[in-house]
Formats: sequence, C-alpha cells, structure tokens
Amino acid sequence: MERKITKTVIIGGVKVGGGESVKIQSMCTCKTSDTVRCSAQINALANAGCDIVRVSVLDEDDAAAIKILKASCSVPLVADIHFSHKLAVAAIESGCDKVRINPGNIGGENQIKIVADCIKAHKIPVRVGANTGSLEKSFADRYGKSAQALVESAMQNVRIFEKNGVGDIVVAVKSSNVQLTYEAYTRLSQICGYPLHIGVTEAGTRQNAIVKSGAALGALLLNGIGDTLRISITGDPVEEVYAAKQLLRAVGLDKNFAEVISCPTCGRCRWNVMSLAAKVNERVKDVKKPLKIAVMGCVVNGPGEAEDCDLGIAGSKEYCVLFRKGEIIKRVSAENAEEEFFKELNGILNE
Amino acid sequence: MERKITKTVIIGGVKVGGGESVKIQSMCTCKTSDTVRCSAQINALANAGCDIVRVSVLDEDDAAAIKILKASCSVPLVADIHFSHKLAVAAIESGCDKVRINPGNIGGENQIKIVADCIKAHKIPVRVGANTGSLEKSFADRYGKSAQALVESAMQNVRIFEKNGVGDIVVAVKSSNVQLTYEAYTRLSQICGYPLHIGVTEAGTRQNAIVKSGAALGALLLNGIGDTLRISITGDPVEEVYAAKQLLRAVGLDKNFAEVISCPTCGRCRWNVMSLAAKVNERVKDVKKPLKIAVMGCVVNGPGEAEDCDLGIAGSKEYCVLFRKGEIIKRVSAENAEEEFFKELNGILNE
Repeated sequence: MERKITKTVIIGGVKVGGGESVKIQSMCTCKTSDTVRCSAQINALANAGCDIVRVSVLDEDDAAAIKILKASCSVPLVADIHFSHKLAVAAIESGCDKVRINPGNIGGENQIKIVADCIKAHKIPVRVGANTGSLEKSFADRYGKSAQALVESAMQNVRIFEKNGVGDIVVAVKSSNVQLTYEAYTRLSQICGYPLHIGVTEAGTRQNAIVKSGAALGALLLNGIGDTLRISITGDPVEEVYAAKQLLRAVGLDKNFAEVISCPTCGRCRWNVMSLAAKVNERVKDVKKPLKIAVMGCVVNGPGEAEDCDLGIAGSKEYCVLFRKGEIIKRVSAENAEEEFFKELNGILNE
Repeated sequence: MERKITKTVIIGGVKVGGGESVKIQSMCTCKTSDTVRCSAQINALANAGCDIVRVSVLDEDDAAAIKILKASCSVPLVADIHFSHKLAVAAIESGCDKVRINPGNIGGENQIKIVADCIKAHKIPVRVGANTGSLEKSFADRYGKSAQALVESAMQNVRIFEKNGVGDIVVAVKSSNVQLTYEAYTRLSQICGYPLHIGVTEAGTRQNAIVKSGAALGALLLNGIGDTLRISITGDPVEEVYAAKQLLRAVGLDKNFAEVISCPTCGRCRWNVMSLAAKVNERVKDVKKPLKIAVMGCVVNGPGEAEDCDLGIAGSKEYCVLFRKGEIIKRVSAENAEEEFFKELNGILNE
C-alpha cells in the first residue's frame, strides 16, 4: 500500500502527516476542570498507547485546567472548543498543543482573526473540518448531507484559516455513516494536502463501533488515506486506544507486535485450540517486536500457515507438531502440547 | 456504492451473487458425525441469522451424517472436504448443498472428473479457491505468497472445474493477512465473473478477528466486492454471525434494522449517555425494520444528527430534548429523560 503523503504538522512534539506513523487519538470523558480525574484518564490513555488526547473546553475553568494537566501529563493535549473565541484564546494561552475549532460557530470574521493570530503566536496547529451533525445549512441545502457537502464545508473552513495566515492545519470530515465517511475522506484526500484526522463519529457502543470504524477507517488506511485516527466508542476511552492499535496492526501500519493467527476450528479439530489461542494472546499482548505465531487446529492449513511463523503449532489425531520458520522442531502428545509450546514461546520472547 | 455483478449461484435455494443480498456463512466446530450436537449448532447459527452453514467431512460417518442433518435443519449445508474424492462423492450423495474442495489435494485428473460428474448430476455448486496456508508450491515459487499467487492458483482451480463442465462455482482467496486479502479479492473481482466468498482466514480471537475482518471485508464491500462472507473467529461460531450482520449493516448492505448512533461523550456531557445507549441497543436488537435512533450527550452535534432520526435525545445542562425527524417533540428533565425516551421509542416500535 502506498500512503498519500500530506504536510507534516507537529502537535506538541508528535509528528502527524508526511508519511509519519499514523497517530492514535482519544478524548477524555470527564470534565476538564476536574483535573484529578482528568489527569488520571489522560495518563491511562497514554499508557494504553494513545499519542494525542483531546479535552473539551466549556468554560474558563476548563481552559485554565489545561495548564495543570500539561504539568502532570506528557502526552500532547488538544482543546475542543465550540461557540466561543475567548475560550479558544484562553485554552491556547493555557498551553494546549492544538485546537479543534469550528470557525462557523465562534462568531464572525473578527473573532476568527483573533483566534488565528493567537494560534500563530503560539505556533500550534488547528483542526478544522465538517460533521454531518453540524453541517452548515448552505452546504446541506446545495448538496444534501453528502460526501461533497462535507468536503466543501471542510475546505471552506481550511481556507478561512489559510486566509488568516495559519498553515498548520489538520482536517476531518465526520459522519456516523460508514459509506459517507469512506467517500468523503476519499474525495478530501484528492484535493487536500493537509494531514487527515479520520474517524466515524457517534459510532455507538463497543463492538458496533469497532465494526463501523474497522470498515470505514480500515478501507481508508488500506488505500493509504489517514494520518491520525480516533475510534469513537460510547464507553471507556481506553477501549478506543486498544481498538485503534489493533486496527493499525491489522492493516500493516504497525508491525512491532506479536501477531497471533489462530483458526476458527472445525470438525477436523481434536484438541483445544481456543483455550491455547486465548492463553497465547494473553502471554504476548505486551510484546513490542515483530513476531508471528500460529495456533492451528489441523494439518489442512496448519503447516502452510506456520511456514513464515516464528512459532507454530498444528494438531492431528494423535499428536501435535511444533514449527519454527517452516521446520518441524518437535512432535508432542496432545496433552503435553501446551507446556512444550510455552517452553518454546518463552525462549523466543527472551531472545 | 455500485456492487460488482457476478453470476447467480444457488446453494440449497439460497441465491448468492448476481447482486443478491450478501449471504452470511459460518462453520460448525463439532464433529459432523455427532449429529445431535452438530444439528443444535447449525440451528443456533441459523437462528442468529446465518444463511449457509459449512461442516467438515473427515470420514464416511461425517458424509453419512449430512443426510440426518439436512432432515433436522432448514439452512443449506456445505461440505468441506480435503484429501479424498470418495468423501466428496459420499457427501454429495448424502445431500449437501455445495462442496468446498481443493482440486489440488483430492488426487489426480480422474478423481476430479469423478467429483465434477457427481456435482453436475446433483446440480449443486462447488467452492474452490486458494489459501496462503495451502498454496501450491509452483505458484508460491513463481509469485511468492502474494495476491497474484492466490488469484492465479484460484483461477487454475476454477478452470479445472470449468473444463469438467461445472459452471456453478464460488471462488475464494484466503489469507490471514488483511492487506493481502484486500489486494487478492480486488484483483480477483476484475477477472472473475463467479460470485466471491470473502473472508480473512485464521483471523484469531474475537475482537482481533472482528477488527481484521472489519477492515478487509469492509474495504471490499465498500468497493462493491463480495457476494457471501464469513467472519472467522476462534470462538463460538454464533459470534461470527453477529459480527457479520453488524458489518453488513455498517456498510449499508442490510438496512432492515434499528441503527443506534451514540456519541462517545466528553467533558461536555452532563448525563449518563452510556447507560441509556446500552439500554436502547438492547431494546432494539431484534427490530427488523429501518429505524435510526440517536443518543447524544450534548447540543454540539445532537440536534444536527437527530435531524434524520426517527427518535433522538440530546442533553444539555438542565434538561434533555427529544427529537423526531428534526422536530423537537418534548423537553424533559434529566431525571425523567430515560422514561420519556422509552415511552416514545415503544410507541415507534409498535407502529
């Protein structure tokens, strides 16, 4: 897959765009001014692998809290602001690393200019875009709630900041509809050179959100589109980070992990693949180097799949076979298989 | 999205290809000859929404069991056979609705001809294809374990059956790698007019499998590719069916359900969106008509998203607002919101 190369934008030291690794984002669910809870949540997100955290700024207390949060957290913070240019300025002066703003709802041209000047003075980027939930009436009337409407609205917001001399921009076109998301970002990537923040908005509760985001963002990433992403889940935001990591690994954009392939088992399977697969997944979940491990129920695809695996196991009627890089290294009885497999696996992990 | 139109193939009365709805498949994990357990599993899969169920045939008992299973189940059954043309013939004579076979491992040309003649006599289709786990050495040597190798191998298997007069063919190119899956099916769909069975093989345990399959199959379906699918999970196969249904709904290929969009909540949210979203999902999970319901934490995207919803709720500091098709129908206090929401929802569901 060839990635679309966009402009590199730096968010609190973290590079987004320009072919850099795709950065994972999430958002705090607690009130930003509740700095004790908020800082705990930001650090939990960072520990889970979140690269950039967004917080909402509703009032002056929230804006002031950013300074405190920055002191207790090491991950870049993005301030999400609606309806007030004063809060945008306050959040920037408080030290946020990026602002997410909708120029259509923070007042008129003068207010936008004030925010733009503040952004330039503090050398931070801005995220703009469009969302089917807050699409301007003019675009909705002209194009319907379509991919074109989202793209035109987003690009108008880009031009407003460009006109005010802001050049570090991240762009998003959000919808809760998977097809619309895929179509809008595909169009946007053809005409926009800024890094794209991809996501399906209001994707719902966990599994539904993972399926929706997996389909839309997976399709985009497989076509080289997307510089930073959020998998939006109604639930604990740490789950968003886990799912985002899994997606980047699934599409080949993060290779530093232990991939466990395991068959779904069928009537051919005579030993407990599910139990071993679950244990192997648990054992390797924190591994940060590229490894491939296969847990296969039978010999139909087992040895073939195990060929390029660092370690593989395939069962048959009487015994299981352990493989390393296509070579059979051991035949073991089904009852000893798990112990022998973990002996080999631990050896590989300690190499 | 425009779907690629393939040949229509009929599997036990169920149409696959030709622009028909995308059919969901899964596979039994128990021994086929254990007809009590197997029939219970087949019926559980069918009740969950599985359109076609595959069973493995390892021996003559399994082949004979198909006749018994067909009598106790109403969903089409596919026999999965390796290494023996005799078992293929036995499974077909026992009444299976399709065979999945690898012509490369059931003997030579004579054996393939015997199976092909039996397939034609019983007017059933065959599924062929390639799998990185069992890719012929000649293709792997020439092309590596690449998309091209999978496609060339699959098409050779197609031609073997065509040469023997079999015209009702379903084709698959399976890999545990998401990028390879996406690339292989994309290539295959350009040169193959038969319906495609799409899936990521050995996708692993549940969430990982859902992310991988969501990305690969989501990307294919969003490009109009795929006539029948399996989401392969190391776990209970009923989970495969639920995930497949969610995916078809996510990409807009199944509209007869109640879509619940809910925001991930943030610092702006002052009431329990998560709790209500979970309850709403549970309430509507069996609805079979197109409905859209929004559970939104605040007014930023709430009213906009609720515009095309059959029912929506958005919160603010003091009260929540209920919407129907963009019209505010009621303002309620946060503490009465849930009760009022369900009163409206139940009304809509009973319409």
